[in-house]
Amino acid sequence: MAPVTGLGEEMHALVERLYPLCRSITGDGVRATLDIVGEYVPLQVHEVPTGTQVLDWTVPQEWNIRDAYVADAAGNRVVDFTASSLHVLGYSVPVAATMPLSELRGHLHTLPDHPAWVPYRTSYYAPDWGFCLSQETLDGLPDGDYEVRIDSTLADGHLTYAEHVVPGQVADEVIVSCHVCHPALANDNMAGVAVATYLARELAERSPYYTYRFIYAPGTIGAITWLARNAERIERVKHGLVLACAGDRGRLTYKQSRRGDAEIDRVLRHVLRTSERPHDVVEFTPYGYDERQYCSPGFDLGVGSLSRTPYAGYPEYHTSADNPDFVSPEALADTLAVCREAFAVLDRNRRYVNLSPYGEPQLGRRGLYESLGGRSDAKQAQMAMLWVLSLSDGEHGLLDVAERSGLPFDAVAAAADALCGAGLIKA
Amino acid sequence: MAPVTGLGEEMHALVERLYPLCRSITGDGVRATLDIVGEYVPLQVHEVPTGTQVLDWTVPQEWNIRDAYVADAAGNRVVDFTASSLHVLGYSVPVAATMPLSELRGHLHTLPDHPAWVPYRTSYYAPDWGFCLSQETLDGLPDGDYEVRIDSTLADGHLTYAEHVVPGQVADEVIVSCHVCHPALANDNMAGVAVATYLARELAERSPYYTYRFIYAPGTIGAITWLARNAERIERVKHGLVLACAGDRGRLTYKQSRRGDAEIDRVLRHVLRTSERPHDVVEFTPYGYDERQYCSPGFDLGVGSLSRTPYAGYPEYHTSADNPDFVSPEALADTLAVCREAFAVLDRNRRYVNLSPYGEPQLGRRGLYESLGGRSDAKQAQMAMLWVLSLSDGEHGLLDVAERSGLPFDAVAAAADALCGAGLIKA
Amino acid sequence: MAPVTGLGEEMHALVERLYPLCRSITGDGVRATLDIVGEYVPLQVHEVPTGTQVLDWTVPQEWNIRDAYVADAAGNRVVDFTASSLHVLGYSVPVAATMPLSELRGHLHTLPDHPAWVPYRTSYYAPDWGFCLSQETLDGLPDGDYEVRIDSTLADGHLTYAEHVVPGQVADEVIVSCHVCHPALANDNMAGVAVATYLARELAERSPYYTYRFIYAPGTIGAITWLARNAERIERVKHGLVLACAGDRGRLTYKQSRRGDAEIDRVLRHVLRTSERPHDVVEFTPYGYDERQYCSPGFDLGVGSLSRTPYAGYPEYHTSADNPDFVSPEALADTLAVCREAFAVLDRNRRYVNLSPYGEPQLGRRGLYESLGGRSDAKQAQMAMLWVLSLSDGEHGLLDVAERSGLPFDAVAAAADALCGAGLIKA
Repeated sequence: MAPVTGLGEEMHALVERLYPLCRSITGDGVRATLDIVGEYVPLQVHEVPTGTQVLDWTVPQEWNIRDAYVADAAGNRVVDFTASSLHVLGYSVPVAATMPLSELRGHLHTLPDHPAWVPYRTSYYAPDWGFCLSQETLDGLPDGDYEVRIDSTLADGHLTYAEHVVPGQVADEVIVSCHVCHPALANDNMAGVAVATYLARELAERSPYYTYRFIYAPGTIGAITWLARNAERIERVKHGLVLACAGDRGRLTYKQSRRGDAEIDRVLRHVLRTSERPHDVVEFTPYGYDERQYCSPGFDLGVGSLSRTPYAGYPEYHTSADNPDFVSPEALADTLAVCREAFAVLDRNRRYVNLSPYGEPQLGRRGLYESLGGRSDAKQAQMAMLWVLSLSDGEHGLLDVAERSGLPFDAVAAAADALCGAGLIKA
Repeated sequence: MAPVTGLGEEMHALVERLYPLCRSITGDGVRATLDIVGEYVPLQVHEVPTGTQVLDWTVPQEWNIRDAYVADAAGNRVVDFTASSLHVLGYSVPVAATMPLSELRGHLHTLPDHPAWVPYRTSYYAPDWGFCLSQETLDGLPDGDYEVRIDSTLADGHLTYAEHVVPGQVADEVIVSCHVCHPALANDNMAGVAVATYLARELAERSPYYTYRFIYAPGTIGAITWLARNAERIERVKHGLVLACAGDRGRLTYKQSRRGDAEIDRVLRHVLRTSERPHDVVEFTPYGYDERQYCSPGFDLGVGSLSRTPYAGYPEYHTSADNPDFVSPEALADTLAVCREAFAVLDRNRRYVNLSPYGEPQLGRRGLYESLGGRSDAKQAQMAMLWVLSLSDGEHGLLDVAERSGLPFDAVAAAADALCGAGLIKA
Repeated sequence: MAPVTGLGEEMHALVERLYPLCRSITGDGVRATLDIVGEYVPLQVHEVPTGTQVLDWTVPQEWNIRDAYVADAAGNRVVDFTASSLHVLGYSVPVAATMPLSELRGHLHTLPDHPAWVPYRTSYYAPDWGFCLSQETLDGLPDGDYEVRIDSTLADGHLTYAEHVVPGQVADEVIVSCHVCHPALANDNMAGVAVATYLARELAERSPYYTYRFIYAPGTIGAITWLARNAERIERVKHGLVLACAGDRGRLTYKQSRRGDAEIDRVLRHVLRTSERPHDVVEFTPYGYDERQYCSPGFDLGVGSLSRTPYAGYPEYHTSADNPDFVSPEALADTLAVCREAFAVLDRNRRYVNLSPYGEPQLGRRGLYESLGGRSDAKQAQMAMLWVLSLSDGEHGLLDVAERSGLPFDAVAAAADALCGAGLIKA
């Protein structure tokens, strides 16, 4: 794991700030989230009207909520939305009623195996209402009547998502996508939002080769909406990464694209392996986060997903225990570091053609050996030049050279630059 | 191993009934065998005249035998064909003579390493005569003259083989082939005959996708004859399985087709692996049973071979110890079960095309989630639908989906049926 | 390791004879070396003028040296070229001077880690002069003035290399290349020269299928010169082997061609594996010996490299400790044996087409079984025939048959001969 840096603390602070907002797949919680992110990187916010057809789906009504509670006979709020946005079933229809506990129970969700935790539950596409609370709270409720109130609206409105673009030297794009639809959960996915945002800031400083597009959108319907509205852009999307659950203390997990051998897959495998971080690389599966949509067979984009402990792989997943304490500055910084390294490789992974492919060119005559004199890595630099010359046949990229030679990618890329400068290879 | 079932006992009874007949590559023993099999499944019997050119071979003269013995000076039969058809060298020319033991020895075959067993020997294409007996019997024979008599005929006639066809929904065929040329040997191959016959009965009950053709033919020359007479059918033969040595107590052995990656190979590997039976999968070799002919390079059919202990892999092989006791009802039932499972997979292994391939289709809107409500395997069924949608790109079949997802083939096939019903995929 | 043979001793004697000559990349030492080799096999010697453009390089001036020494104030030679040609830096410009030890030190090369050994150093392309001596000698030199003299010439002349061709049945060529530019080093590469020379003599006796071309040339510039002057021959070069460091006592190392799956790679892997010699097979790297040039991406020839302990892999490498004692007759004989076996396989590795591919042809009718009668390897020979028939589909060569069947290549090749003779297959 990377050493704690100021960046880790900064990202953690952003997670803490975003954490309490009541997000859902639509509504003002998403807008408030994007407003805050917009303080870090400029965002283009899109509002897509309810009823818009997006691929096989339709943008739903917008959900907003002002208050919700269960109060006992004495008027005390025993379950209170204002304490945590998790307490209300997402997309609950409005309700105002009094009913006995026995009837209310059918609308209460708990986690008997974790009696102190509050679960996260939604009902986006089937009208319903409910409350989430800890088993301990439920166990403490005496029988009797309770006042139930959910002050929500479900009405025509918009689905909101945002983009931030770091322009590159070419129009070909890399997308970085993170979901912004979960209420008070920290790792899932304000951690991903924070890493994406700091990554965007760094990329802007280095004039990347590719154009990098950051997508902040609600899960599933948001990614589907983006795909539906960007049909002509898709062919320019060469690579992509979904960032999710990016801040817990577990080891890194890279989930490969559906293609399995996409360049992004090879890059992440290389960076994770050579950095000697503990990590897992797993096969694509058609469930998880929005890689499901980007990798659906009609698109089949080279989009992988980077997480720490993967989807549903930790007990705190989708519970109140996924709070800012569950996310660490070190883990956030480490995830950011891997993204930084991976995109640095991806961005330089060109294929070159050896312009002097018959026999070895005479490097000494061109001063390519002398330029290495005294450098402690002179031998490595020389080997890197020979390897780049050997494999620059138009079929191998620099990542191939690094993998086959066992040399660091940076050394290989430096050798390619030197050989390019000497006119021995061209991209 | 599958539990003993009535089917295992029934198949064993069929083995016992067929066992004593004196089969060879031609003659009335084959006809009598096919008569009995014909009581279980209707057979189309073919008679091919001596001298018929079949590929590189010629149908030989027909061999029949009524009696054979070696009698001592007192007239006692010390070797007696009526006790076991193994006692006479297959295709022995007729002989009637008296000769001293010293001269007779050159025509006697024993197994010194297994002194109580009688070997099985033939001389199909070189005129010869001889007797097979146990070493113990031979050791007990005093010197002196013996009467030798083989009442056989070798004359123009026919080679006999039979077919049983289970019609399918398509004309594409699966062949199941078993050799019927060995005399009193149980595992080799009345066990294969019994499993094939019961398999044919089961298939007829389920209106299979493929047309299944069962071939009962003498080894080598019979398969060659079938191939020679079915030149136009060959291109419709998509898959096949040779059944041999199907009833001993050893673990199952699947020998792959010459191609090694034929669909039948993938199906058998899948079924054997996922069923967690002890088993071996071995590479193709150009010796063994009639897979040699079906997989010869001019045909190169996708035909594998299923045995228990493989070809020549047990000491009882081609001896009198391969008797009905060597075959067990449990083993016969187990081999049948694997065939049943394998053909159930093969028969449903279609490729589908996702008709809504851009993003995930909304399954809930179509009631595909609700249809799972309350089912204990609802999660698995949902995953199976997502996997089928993800891989239905025209390049992957349902077996690919099962292998890649790790889900049971049946769950995958059920998901494909549901998605087909909802109009989301088509074959 | 093969048993010591007279050949091993003979090759060792050749190494001893060639060892002391002062070779470099040009000059009379190379000519004297080729004169001696020419006593064993007839050589065609080529002289290429200084200044000739060869691919990216230019043939340098020719270097010759008559004497060189460092003498102390009393006139005693403390470093003496006549004792060993290693003592002078290769391509040293002439010098005649007297200077204090302190000034001389900048031109002296030693091996502090191996104080008794003299290193081997050159400066081909940067004008320089110097002496190589043991650390012990250096440590024993008192301060004071020393006479320094190098009686060398660096002048327009020629680069010298030689070829020996063993004509084959076809014009397609196998090249065997060894470098002849190192002065008093035995393993590197008079051992390779000796093995190549004895291999050439053996090949001439057996009328090989391929034409074998032996190239004796200085490293790098010599191979580049050969490639530059043989542009039209290249497409006929189907296979090749670089012989280097062929006589030390270490295990054999085969370095694969850049292609990695060239036929020469498969042959060497097969021979080394099936011979059960301890050995290593390593991937191609773009440094080492002249495989660098033959495998440069513009040529990308199927040329591997056979050594014992590989390039720079032993402490004696490029030092006076690489003397004839470092090379053993047994090792030389063993390297020669592997070359002999490998080229015997390569030479017979034809692809055949089965002319009777539908079903098995009847071998017995053609006397192919009878021909095996009584041979102890009759079963193996029969299996080999079945395998050759099975795989003779125009896509598999005899090496494929040997690898897939597990049978010895010789048995497979004999089966192919028999089947060819019977008209069942053709090349």
